[in-house]
Amino acid sequence: LDSGMFVHVRMMLNEMPPSDVAHLLESSPPRARNLLWKLVNVEREGDILNYLNDEIRNHFVDQMAPEHLAQALEGLEVDDLADILGELPESVYLEVMASMSEQDRHRVEAALIFPEDTAGGLMNLDTITVRPKVTVDVVSRYLRMKGLPDTTDSIYVVDTHDRLLGAVSLASLITSRQEVLVEELLNDNVETILATMPANEVAQIFERRDLLSAPVVDEEGRLLGRITIDDVVDVIREEAEHSLMSMAGLDEADDTFAPVWSSARRRAIWLGINLLTVLVAAQVIGIFESTIQVVTALAILQPIVPSMGGVAGTQTLTLVIRGISLGHVVAGNSRWLIMKELGVSVINGILWAVAVGTLTYFWFQDLPQAPMLAISIGGAMVVNLIVGVFAGATLPMILRKFNMDPALSGGVILTTITDVVGFFTLLGFATLFFV
Amino acid sequence: LDSGMFVHVRMMLNEMPPSDVAHLLESSPPRARNLLWKLVNVEREGDILNYLNDEIRNHFVDQMAPEHLAQALEGLEVDDLADILGELPESVYLEVMASMSEQDRHRVEAALIFPEDTAGGLMNLDTITVRPKVTVDVVSRYLRMKGLPDTTDSIYVVDTHDRLLGAVSLASLITSRQEVLVEELLNDNVETILATMPANEVAQIFERRDLLSAPVVDEEGRLLGRITIDDVVDVIREEAEHSLMSMAGLDEADDTFAPVWSSARRRAIWLGINLLTVLVAAQVIGIFESTIQVVTALAILQPIVPSMGGVAGTQTLTLVIRGISLGHVVAGNSRWLIMKELGVSVINGILWAVAVGTLTYFWFQDLPQAPMLAISIGGAMVVNLIVGVFAGATLPMILRKFNMDPALSGGVILTTITDVVGFFTLLGFATLFFV
Repeated sequence: LDSGMFVHVRMMLNEMPPSDVAHLLESSPPRARNLLWKLVNVEREGDILNYLNDEIRNHFVDQMAPEHLAQALEGLEVDDLADILGELPESVYLEVMASMSEQDRHRVEAALIFPEDTAGGLMNLDTITVRPKVTVDVVSRYLRMKGLPDTTDSIYVVDTHDRLLGAVSLASLITSRQEVLVEELLNDNVETILATMPANEVAQIFERRDLLSAPVVDEEGRLLGRITIDDVVDVIREEAEHSLMSMAGLDEADDTFAPVWSSARRRAIWLGINLLTVLVAAQVIGIFESTIQVVTALAILQPIVPSMGGVAGTQTLTLVIRGISLGHVVAGNSRWLIMKELGVSVINGILWAVAVGTLTYFWFQDLPQAPMLAISIGGAMVVNLIVGVFAGATLPMILRKFNMDPALSGGVILTTITDVVGFFTLLGFATLFFV
Repeated sequence: LDSGMFVHVRMMLNEMPPSDVAHLLESSPPRARNLLWKLVNVEREGDILNYLNDEIRNHFVDQMAPEHLAQALEGLEVDDLADILGELPESVYLEVMASMSEQDRHRVEAALIFPEDTAGGLMNLDTITVRPKVTVDVVSRYLRMKGLPDTTDSIYVVDTHDRLLGAVSLASLITSRQEVLVEELLNDNVETILATMPANEVAQIFERRDLLSAPVVDEEGRLLGRITIDDVVDVIREEAEHSLMSMAGLDEADDTFAPVWSSARRRAIWLGINLLTVLVAAQVIGIFESTIQVVTALAILQPIVPSMGGVAGTQTLTLVIRGISLGHVVAGNSRWLIMKELGVSVINGILWAVAVGTLTYFWFQDLPQAPMLAISIGGAMVVNLIVGVFAGATLPMILRKFNMDPALSGGVILTTITDVVGFFTLLGFATLFFV
């Protein structure tokens, strides 16, 4: 790229599938990325934007003139269009809409009624519908005329009020004779999805039922559109990544190759939050300064208890967060789960209390305080592991009650608790013995 | 369930789809789970086993007699069958195989040639193949006779040596006239997958191309089978979960409701590894015991620097691990990424060094050592943030060279580094000033 063979690169870019161009842009540092983007043909920009992650897409969209953007977005599927337009500032959005054809405008407005993270926001409007009383032959001729949208595996059967009666798979259309009526092939046991259903529940249904597509209906059972597996795959990927990234204080839409300054600004916030929590822990140590003055060994042993409590708590927290997002952990079994995790923490607490206590005793056996140090650290270990695990098991449920994201705030709150309790119990026990 | 209405529960269980029964079993504590499993009808056990996660499935399979298992597994798709049988101990495997029909036995043996995490291990053998010179009418009659397997969106066209020529979608079969030849509808630009391709690359291709299915071929281009999106969704889910769970020292197949003892045993290992690393950090503090004796304030400030370095490093580590698994981070751009992350760490290092230094100065302003404490902690902060971020950016690449899993071992190694460097720099700078 640096060698300046622009013509050659432009040709290659415009022969690659849009998803590959998007992948290339996502894998490029900012300077190369902007250069590559300029080499893309205008009529392919819409398709490529569609495959880009939110942050990079918004970056490019912000630079485009509204009429240019409207032109680039022509021909996109309506759910993808709504995704892109839904994130624009009001004024740009109105300008882009004004540059679009009336038909497209109506479609986008219909799609934007539903929030992005619901079934309505995921759905496409390109359903093919037929009536129950027509023959396979008529359907075939109709499809030949109209064409089939991508990833269509079923067509839908509706009554005169657009209410969904069921689905007919392409497979059954092919394997039946021409004179058969659609209603004889009708599968009326098809999984229908309410437009207001949250996207993650939609994903769970698709995963559990191995669906390729599903019809979306309103409260009255009228067919609104369909959701296809390729959109659901994105939801599954994003949801699973969300937990991973949030636990490190990152956003799943974060661009790996974002410029230094914007990365630094975002990370600074998370470091600042962490500083506040560790200052609380430092204050706790401050309470016991006089004890440390007497027994300096405490300063050496100090990091062990909070660290072990943090690790044990984080394991439980991760397990419960994953359990909730898979739908395994629900109100009915959470009490059992908390009791089980407490059982695990008692066993490990005692095990590692004995191990660390023994180790401490022999490490500081030259000191007269060695037995008391061993007992202090052992006792603190048991308490902190139980507290950490209890916090790990209950925090996700509590945070969700307050509509907070357990993956984002759970880890910070947890380690604050295990740090404070860890320092307080170790130094507290020691103070009881030595002061 | 406790009320003993077994008949009622049994009826409900056997009316639910197998995937829902599997979900119910996964969400139940061990006692209820074993009870529910006993109430499932034998002929449904195979389907349900197929939907269960590895750990719970193995638990049930271990309890089943080989003939019983062979009977339960009848009718499963061959890739699923191979998954289950591939994990059995040799002796049980041979017994189960002996109880199966000869045809099934051959299919399983063919599927077990390829490791589970390759395209060959994911593929199904239920492809429908036709020759190029037949008409749509003939194909339709053939399909009517033979039936179409689930989630079929394309049939494949092969030559007389079984070499793949291309695919014909069901959609194009429906929308074309009966007398058209298959070769006229042939898409010869179909994405073919080599049987030896790793499963995560298969998943990336499916995601990027929005595929529903793809043909699997051997080195000579002969059609071996096909991969369908439902199997790929499982790969995507597992891969994304793998990073999340590994970073907490858990296995993505871990059962949330495992019994207390088996959970405690597994977690103990991770806590033991963590104890070793924190003991290393404690040894570093021990080196500077005499300095702490002179300035006890150091014991209070001690946790701040390692904590901030650990957080900054973990953010980078998580970003890079995700980038690698998405295929964004490759050899060509890793140098740019490391430089960028170092830039971020320098900015944040200086920012938080000034903040923490100022804070320390005013916190301990009554002490004569306050200015020197502020300088020590600020200097340590800059060094540790840079070291932490550098380790976070380079560790995943180094660990992969040694075939180690960065998500599993990366976090432990990283925090050991940030703990050691954090304590060493803070206490080291302080010692230079005060001793």
